[in-house]
Amino acid sequence: MADENRMWVLAERPDGPVDENTFRMESSPIPEIGDGEALVRVRVISIDPTNRMWIGEEPTYLPPVAIGEVMRGLGLGEVVESNNPSFPVGARVQGLTGWQDYAVISDEQPLMVVPDGVEADDATLLGALGMTGATAWFGMKEIGQPKEGETVVVSAAAGAVGSVAGQLAKAEGARVVGIAGGPEKCAWIVDQLGFDAAVDYKADDWHDQLKASTPDGIDVDFENVGGEIMEAVFGRLNINARVVLCGLISGYNETEPPPGPRTFGNLLVNRVKLQGFIILDYYPRFGEAVTGLSELAAEGKLETEETVVDGFDRLPEALNMLFAGENRGKLVVQIAD
Amino acid sequence: MADENRMWVLAERPDGPVDENTFRMESSPIPEIGDGEALVRVRVISIDPTNRMWIGEEPTYLPPVAIGEVMRGLGLGEVVESNNPSFPVGARVQGLTGWQDYAVISDEQPLMVVPDGVEADDATLLGALGMTGATAWFGMKEIGQPKEGETVVVSAAAGAVGSVAGQLAKAEGARVVGIAGGPEKCAWIVDQLGFDAAVDYKADDWHDQLKASTPDGIDVDFENVGGEIMEAVFGRLNINARVVLCGLISGYNETEPPPGPRTFGNLLVNRVKLQGFIILDYYPRFGEAVTGLSELAAEGKLETEETVVDGFDRLPEALNMLFAGENRGKLVVQIAD
Repeated sequence: MADENRMWVLAERPDGPVDENTFRMESSPIPEIGDGEALVRVRVISIDPTNRMWIGEEPTYLPPVAIGEVMRGLGLGEVVESNNPSFPVGARVQGLTGWQDYAVISDEQPLMVVPDGVEADDATLLGALGMTGATAWFGMKEIGQPKEGETVVVSAAAGAVGSVAGQLAKAEGARVVGIAGGPEKCAWIVDQLGFDAAVDYKADDWHDQLKASTPDGIDVDFENVGGEIMEAVFGRLNINARVVLCGLISGYNETEPPPGPRTFGNLLVNRVKLQGFIILDYYPRFGEAVTGLSELAAEGKLETEETVVDGFDRLPEALNMLFAGENRGKLVVQIAD
Repeated sequence: MADENRMWVLAERPDGPVDENTFRMESSPIPEIGDGEALVRVRVISIDPTNRMWIGEEPTYLPPVAIGEVMRGLGLGEVVESNNPSFPVGARVQGLTGWQDYAVISDEQPLMVVPDGVEADDATLLGALGMTGATAWFGMKEIGQPKEGETVVVSAAAGAVGSVAGQLAKAEGARVVGIAGGPEKCAWIVDQLGFDAAVDYKADDWHDQLKASTPDGIDVDFENVGGEIMEAVFGRLNINARVVLCGLISGYNETEPPPGPRTFGNLLVNRVKLQGFIILDYYPRFGEAVTGLSELAAEGKLETEETVVDGFDRLPEALNMLFAGENRGKLVVQIAD
């Protein structure tokens, strides 16, 4: 065990992308645990679009991280000391550990203990078989509900959630179209993940690509991006379409909220059901998702991929990599082995 | 019986509000009916925001009315000749009769025969106890589902649908806030219809009024208007709020679709469920609504009001009255007694 706890704390709120002034590294003694608590040595930290939301001025679905507070983030690690039988020493746990080496946990927080049988590396446990996979799972199964032969569009399709969401829709027999940035990602989601078609939003003709790849319109939009991409997708929604409103990453770095889609009226005309969706609401049902996802992976119906950035000091940089779309699949930072 | 059938046909598509060139009056002999058909003498024609949608360039939930075609509209009248036992002579029928004196009907169209026991004047049968009331009924009961103590906001609250929708939410025990134009309408919905509060969107401080009248946020938005009003309402939606997306009248006269709400992101953050809604989908269940609404009216829990414009020649003018907000409650044109 290291003899100190490194922490990234919020130094100032960014005006746009995070920069070298946004966070500050500090250290403290390793925390002592009290009754009912356990100490987790964090090994891997998940980099998610929602990280950016949490450091804005305004409360979202959680209060903003305060200036001087440890940056909020999802992490996975191992219990190294415990006063709580739910978290025995050696258990693998994921939850909002924050950007630090050690986190104190208790029954008060939403946490997920990785079941004993599940064998996968840390990054996968945090990704396709963890919170990320669960996001895709509940969003697609509970809200999207694609039927055989329907057309499903997934934006940020080469991202952590999108890449899993698309594969889940394929497993249901839907036609799946992914929207991703650049020819490499587009090839990956079609060739490796089995999407039926890809739309490269960095290409000048992406509107035409979207039209050509959804000749029968769109029945389910698994929305991760917002902005112009969502506007175009909304314009092609069919009668009784469903929108899984999972993320709006295109606006998270903006100071002012962007205008909504000009195609909003299509939600009315085509009787669309749109449901906003935050994965934390599903914490009590996480086991369901992990079991289901593990089964799909075992059947060869779920390819998982992670982009692993090495080193605690690179956490802020990794967040900008995410917004620049430099990752494929889940983006994590490994802070300990 | 008159000896000719007057018809308003679409002469050209309007660019903004309808004007004197939009429609043209024509006449034809009274139509002959074939097997399975019946002839309705139309007495009252309903003026609805959706009329304006139907004469745009683009298909909506129905194809656009063609140039030279009789204007599409909801009407109520009496069967005067019949080759169909479902529509006996003397029956009162409402459906898409069009803007004309006589309409040929059959089992192919969505139609509603007014049940024998129901006693109300023509305008009410077309309004609070007809399609309009049914719109409020299914929208509020099936999508909005207000619970006791929740806050419900209704836009265009002094309009045909809004005035009924608000009263339905009151009957469920919700706190109901109506948004309407001008002090007279605002007083009417509070004093006569029993709304808890009104927001006058023509007042400079309407944002403040909305905030003050929804101190606990908004749980249900029965949305009839769109634009800035919807944007402000979306900004105050609570966790797990519902949006009944029933109309977007503020944009119907625009040539280009307006931008969506800047507060769109709140649908995600607060896990809002939004459902687009077209009343025609509920035709088979109309009886349910009419029965329920008649009961509420009998119990004194549903005030109904109509603005009746007299004369077939005033149909186009009445459509602009609607968009100018000159009606209170249901707006109809009486074309025969």
